[in-house]
Amino acid sequence: MREVAVSGVSMTRFGKYMEKGLRELSAEVILGAANDAGIDLKDIQFASVGNSLAGLITGQESVRGQVILKEVGLGGIPVTNVENACATSSTAFFECWMAVASGYCDVALALGVEKLFCGDTARSNAALATCIDVDVEGRMGFSFLGWYAAEARSHMETYGTTQEQMAKVSVKSHKNGSLNPYAQYQKEVSIEEVLSSRPIAWPITLLMCAPIGDGAAAAILTSKDIARRHTSEPITIASSELTSGRILDCRRAESAGALTEMLAKKSYEKSGIGPEDLGVVELHDAFSPAEISIYEDLGLCNRGEGGRLVDEGKTEIGGTIPVNTSGGLAAKGHPVGATGIAMITEIVWQLRGLAGKRQVEPRPKVGLVQNGGGLVAGEYAADAIHILKR
Amino acid sequence: MREVAVSGVSMTRFGKYMEKGLRELSAEVILGAANDAGIDLKDIQFASVGNSLAGLITGQESVRGQVILKEVGLGGIPVTNVENACATSSTAFFECWMAVASGYCDVALALGVEKLFCGDTARSNAALATCIDVDVEGRMGFSFLGWYAAEARSHMETYGTTQEQMAKVSVKSHKNGSLNPYAQYQKEVSIEEVLSSRPIAWPITLLMCAPIGDGAAAAILTSKDIARRHTSEPITIASSELTSGRILDCRRAESAGALTEMLAKKSYEKSGIGPEDLGVVELHDAFSPAEISIYEDLGLCNRGEGGRLVDEGKTEIGGTIPVNTSGGLAAKGHPVGATGIAMITEIVWQLRGLAGKRQVEPRPKVGLVQNGGGLVAGEYAADAIHILKR
Repeated sequence: MREVAVSGVSMTRFGKYMEKGLRELSAEVILGAANDAGIDLKDIQFASVGNSLAGLITGQESVRGQVILKEVGLGGIPVTNVENACATSSTAFFECWMAVASGYCDVALALGVEKLFCGDTARSNAALATCIDVDVEGRMGFSFLGWYAAEARSHMETYGTTQEQMAKVSVKSHKNGSLNPYAQYQKEVSIEEVLSSRPIAWPITLLMCAPIGDGAAAAILTSKDIARRHTSEPITIASSELTSGRILDCRRAESAGALTEMLAKKSYEKSGIGPEDLGVVELHDAFSPAEISIYEDLGLCNRGEGGRLVDEGKTEIGGTIPVNTSGGLAAKGHPVGATGIAMITEIVWQLRGLAGKRQVEPRPKVGLVQNGGGLVAGEYAADAIHILKR
Repeated sequence: MREVAVSGVSMTRFGKYMEKGLRELSAEVILGAANDAGIDLKDIQFASVGNSLAGLITGQESVRGQVILKEVGLGGIPVTNVENACATSSTAFFECWMAVASGYCDVALALGVEKLFCGDTARSNAALATCIDVDVEGRMGFSFLGWYAAEARSHMETYGTTQEQMAKVSVKSHKNGSLNPYAQYQKEVSIEEVLSSRPIAWPITLLMCAPIGDGAAAAILTSKDIARRHTSEPITIASSELTSGRILDCRRAESAGALTEMLAKKSYEKSGIGPEDLGVVELHDAFSPAEISIYEDLGLCNRGEGGRLVDEGKTEIGGTIPVNTSGGLAAKGHPVGATGIAMITEIVWQLRGLAGKRQVEPRPKVGLVQNGGGLVAGEYAADAIHILKR
């Protein structure tokens, strides 16, 4: 398998777009990513389109990619429509990586797009609830929120992590979001505001939750040769890994966290890059407490020390290992199918030195993206880790 | 890209399974295909799961593959959930081909499964209607049926093809279906019965239409080396091609047919196999008249001669180029997401000499599968051609 470059990226600001559909949101980022890569749309040889819930929200099911690509005049190429809940567009990215790495093609388009706002929150929530095993967890009334809350409580009981530490994660996310023109929420919040915001499921409060949102993100993946035509410093994919839950048991300590830990170890082994080499990380903070345990899963600290990492400010911009400089899912937003590529976009911008007020200095050489999706038998249904380097 | 073998296949009988869900239907064929390939489930390194409409029918969206694979204890591997309307499982097959051909893995599982019966035909039909561009064709009230009927009329006007010839295709399909224990309909029909069955949209009558159905089909793709451990005569993939509509105009002569024609030419060029080398073909007869024009698209005869091919019986079992020996979509059935791999299954069985009463003699060396899906701007949204050989 040959080396693959991320030659172009683009995303919309995440937010509420009642006047825009999948096509309009997507067209903007497809053109943006192609322009960023310096390629013509006609050079695209393969496209993987990630969208998780349009069938249930907009009514467009199955051939969503073709409907979207028609908008920019793209056709006559292989198009796969993929879903993997919150890891949907990381899956599209993974497929494009495979297509270019295998030599099947030289230029591939990975797109993620989601419309969650539809004027009916109940409908949006019902759609989101289909990202679990509807016959098992669904019928038990178990939701993502409940799962994340149970995880957070388990971390508190096992390691003494506090709700205040979890609130600090949210504070950091919103601070970073305030520096990011692409974030849905661009307003700082205080620890007190987080803790006193509406209780959702102990210890999770409203300001610890990723919001409902709309948005799109795209990436152009190319052979390294093609990337070199446009830049002397291509961003390449050191590791592209996707996995699914292993059907163990439903206890966090042995399951969900361990899946990410296993995938991270595999990514580090394959790439020869360790957690100590990372200059910036985007990870899946669907709810702020999760960020603390994912620090541990990724080896950014030892097991049980995630809370201390937050207290010491090490994951802030300016810290030793900045995490979720974009504002994360909590502040940047989380239009499910767009999230993975938006995370990758942030890392590409950081590696290129284009992250504006939230730029990590010195400019990082290596970044990691962890994007989990869905829930089956107490584990992520899908979990993806991408390591990018320059 | 290295050569890839189809080492195992399996399908359920297509039909109405009110007592079985996605899991039960899938488990049967996953175990069947693995057994057929002589591999353990734990050897599967990558899975692509095709299902088009469960989100709208059973309520299970997004992580369908993981929910299904859990049933047989499969996890901890990359799983992609893919959709491409009627070409959904050909897309899953294409992805597995890429995964093995690239050297990413040695053993991949391609699965297609669909539940269309839900006790509410209106719901099934509404779901099927989302496989087009819902904002354009959908709002115009344009359905698949209307599209196929318009195509058929165009063929009649341009080439003098008759409704009787179209009925003969249905007669052939039902005759073949009567020989296939996996077919939804296993009963012969006469030309008179086809012509006098309920008019649907001129010239299409009820017996020319693929029925609503449930079912699953799976294939295990492996490196040729692994295939050789189990057989001295592996079935290999001479060509795997997927494309999308090219956004031309909406007239059949210049658009839909030409897409398949273009893809067939590309497949023949890449594989070095021509239409004259084919011993058996499965093609996308969602409505019987389409079979006639697809003969021409695939180069089985010259443009406009499809009707004559039927009159001469050349595409019957025992003819020079047997087509849809399985009974085709019209008689074998068409559970959308399962159809592509079921077509491939039939070709594998024919190449191996395992097609029972419908076996083509002498046993064919090469077979082709054409599977179209969805409708965007008057063309297939997705179109896949696979050429298999022994």
